[in-house]
Amino acid sequence: MTESPKYVPQYSTIAEPKGPTAVGEILALAARPEVISFAGGLPSPEGFPVKAISDASDWVLETNGKVALQYSTSAGVPELREAVARIETAAGVPTKPEEVLIVSSSQQALDLVGRAFIEPDKGTKVLVESPTYLGALLAFNLSHPVYGELPTDEKGLNPDAVTDAVAGASFAYLIPTFQNPTGLTIDAERRRKFAEVARRYDFMIVEDNPYGELYYGAERPPVSMRKFAPERTLRLGTMSKVLAPGFRVGYIVGPKEIINALADLKSSMDLHTSTYTQLITARVINEGLFEHHLPMVRKLYADKAHYMLECLDELMPKHPEVSWTHPDGGMFIWVNIPKGLDSAVLMKKVLASDVPVGFVPGAAFYACDPEPNHFRLSFVTVSNEKIRAGVKSIADALKTFL
Amino acid sequence: MTESPKYVPQYSTIAEPKGPTAVGEILALAARPEVISFAGGLPSPEGFPVKAISDASDWVLETNGKVALQYSTSAGVPELREAVARIETAAGVPTKPEEVLIVSSSQQALDLVGRAFIEPDKGTKVLVESPTYLGALLAFNLSHPVYGELPTDEKGLNPDAVTDAVAGASFAYLIPTFQNPTGLTIDAERRRKFAEVARRYDFMIVEDNPYGELYYGAERPPVSMRKFAPERTLRLGTMSKVLAPGFRVGYIVGPKEIINALADLKSSMDLHTSTYTQLITARVINEGLFEHHLPMVRKLYADKAHYMLECLDELMPKHPEVSWTHPDGGMFIWVNIPKGLDSAVLMKKVLASDVPVGFVPGAAFYACDPEPNHFRLSFVTVSNEKIRAGVKSIADALKTFL
Repeated sequence: MTESPKYVPQYSTIAEPKGPTAVGEILALAARPEVISFAGGLPSPEGFPVKAISDASDWVLETNGKVALQYSTSAGVPELREAVARIETAAGVPTKPEEVLIVSSSQQALDLVGRAFIEPDKGTKVLVESPTYLGALLAFNLSHPVYGELPTDEKGLNPDAVTDAVAGASFAYLIPTFQNPTGLTIDAERRRKFAEVARRYDFMIVEDNPYGELYYGAERPPVSMRKFAPERTLRLGTMSKVLAPGFRVGYIVGPKEIINALADLKSSMDLHTSTYTQLITARVINEGLFEHHLPMVRKLYADKAHYMLECLDELMPKHPEVSWTHPDGGMFIWVNIPKGLDSAVLMKKVLASDVPVGFVPGAAFYACDPEPNHFRLSFVTVSNEKIRAGVKSIADALKTFL
Repeated sequence: MTESPKYVPQYSTIAEPKGPTAVGEILALAARPEVISFAGGLPSPEGFPVKAISDASDWVLETNGKVALQYSTSAGVPELREAVARIETAAGVPTKPEEVLIVSSSQQALDLVGRAFIEPDKGTKVLVESPTYLGALLAFNLSHPVYGELPTDEKGLNPDAVTDAVAGASFAYLIPTFQNPTGLTIDAERRRKFAEVARRYDFMIVEDNPYGELYYGAERPPVSMRKFAPERTLRLGTMSKVLAPGFRVGYIVGPKEIINALADLKSSMDLHTSTYTQLITARVINEGLFEHHLPMVRKLYADKAHYMLECLDELMPKHPEVSWTHPDGGMFIWVNIPKGLDSAVLMKKVLASDVPVGFVPGAAFYACDPEPNHFRLSFVTVSNEKIRAGVKSIADALKTFL
């Protein structure tokens, strides 16, 4: 047999040692059974409405089987576009079905955005929070953009500190609510001000909102950027955190003409998202997912978050440079350790200890200048017992570096 | 409200007037209720195993619900990779699960191939049959390749007529079995010779095989190109024609190191294909889809094809330059009309007649020099009565041009 022709992935040209690691590696790490994993972004299977999905699957096949199994249009099935429009309207911005594009996961939404708004290898400027979601960087990297980091402080993105350095950007990618990895939420006033910045410098806003429905308290988080810059905001949503990631159903809402252009682009990428899972999702939503099921998921996540915060308070070393965020929703806590320490080195020590624990070292979340003295903790798939044991193991290892 | 920032899709730069039309347009046309549509590539809903899918959905959720609804790895769930390996082994080339990548439709496979093997805007040469599948052109076009057309005759791709013009190509895209749009099948000897050509000029072979299981007679079609050039062939398969397109489940088989690289690329595009539909698909295959269900689908398609061929024989004008292919499987018949006639003009006339009929004008299927004096007929979703009425309407309109 002749050797296979050399395969050179296009995206290898941007892989730099300081850059993001593959999401796949994290999933692999989280899968090792002996490790207490605070690494994954996986939702808790306790939150999956298996019975509702089973009922909806039966209903879809019984009432509409030949449609559910056939090809459908790239923009999405009408039932789901309507359901998403109602969800987004309820979240604060009146939305029509034709402003909704159904996609095969919000990872595909990120890929679509990258392909539509980054000209490959031409130095297109993309603005991101610092730190930001590494899966977004991986998607955008396929088109080789140039990144600009937006200024942030302890309250998240700070629009008052934006400088002329953002001029000429194609778009800004933000996770304004329960951010990944920090858990921080930008308040309404900062959102309004950032919309003004975007308009002044004429760039698009890509607002990723995977966690917005997972608020711990009684009140919804601040409203979408679409309220402040409807003409230039694309908001990305997903069913992965409120229903189930195994469905790979997400969506983009935004100006109709952009949605139509993205639907055309999507048709060359996978023609359309599974008709079957779209119709099941629509049925589950119409049967009351958000009203009856989500409150249980919110309480589950709130309880886990509060328990991990308790453990951190109790067990972590008292040190002026050791701190962490206190999210009001979502799946992540961001821990700061003293400058000069590297969380990847800490993780190696923790993984080699009697109670091995996985988390995500902070450097992976930076587009430009990584700050290794942070790491991300996720709590939602872990039992309270393991949360306590895991936090204690991290704290013990950290103490040896202080 | 300010105007939305100008959205310029990257792929518009390759749209030329002679180029392929969007698949979406065909689907829209096929959906108009008053039109007899021979246009679509849609499988017949009569062939969907609704009961088997319903049983498998229930089984998957009952036995494995929390896995089925969770994230999974980019390469695909083990159950389905194993099932596909068995299918490909049964089709003539021994295949291991680790040589299988599960993708979200074979359209995504085409997109993956385009992104992996075409360097954007750098004039990468891609070889295609003439005519070829327009959806493949749409996927590859996103990376702006330069196309070279491979020589064909009435038996399909002709390896003996290949010249040095193929030198430097990155890959050749072929549909060797029941080709779209012609319905032609390349025999084993031509496959072997083309593998030699690929090795001589050192290009990859992308063998698209959506229809290979839909053979009308007792015998399987000739074996995969993987038999003759295993080190450089990627074979694309799909569940859309043997199970249901609404699932969006396809696969790529090929050398393990390329499969791994493509899985990495896929992880940035949609992380992975729906765990739920993958596990349902594996269950349906393991319960005997190919043994018990497919023979019915084959007979259904064979009967429709033979009936359309009868109608063409009986109703089409006798003319030395009017002819059509006689496929041994698949979903398409390719009709040739006299040079100088344009099948798009013919279609307009047929659509405006008392019995409006849709088909796909031939020009859409050419990467370089379109030949408008051909068109593609699909028969699988149309009743015999409508097949007869539709062929008669086309024949009547054609006579007015002769």
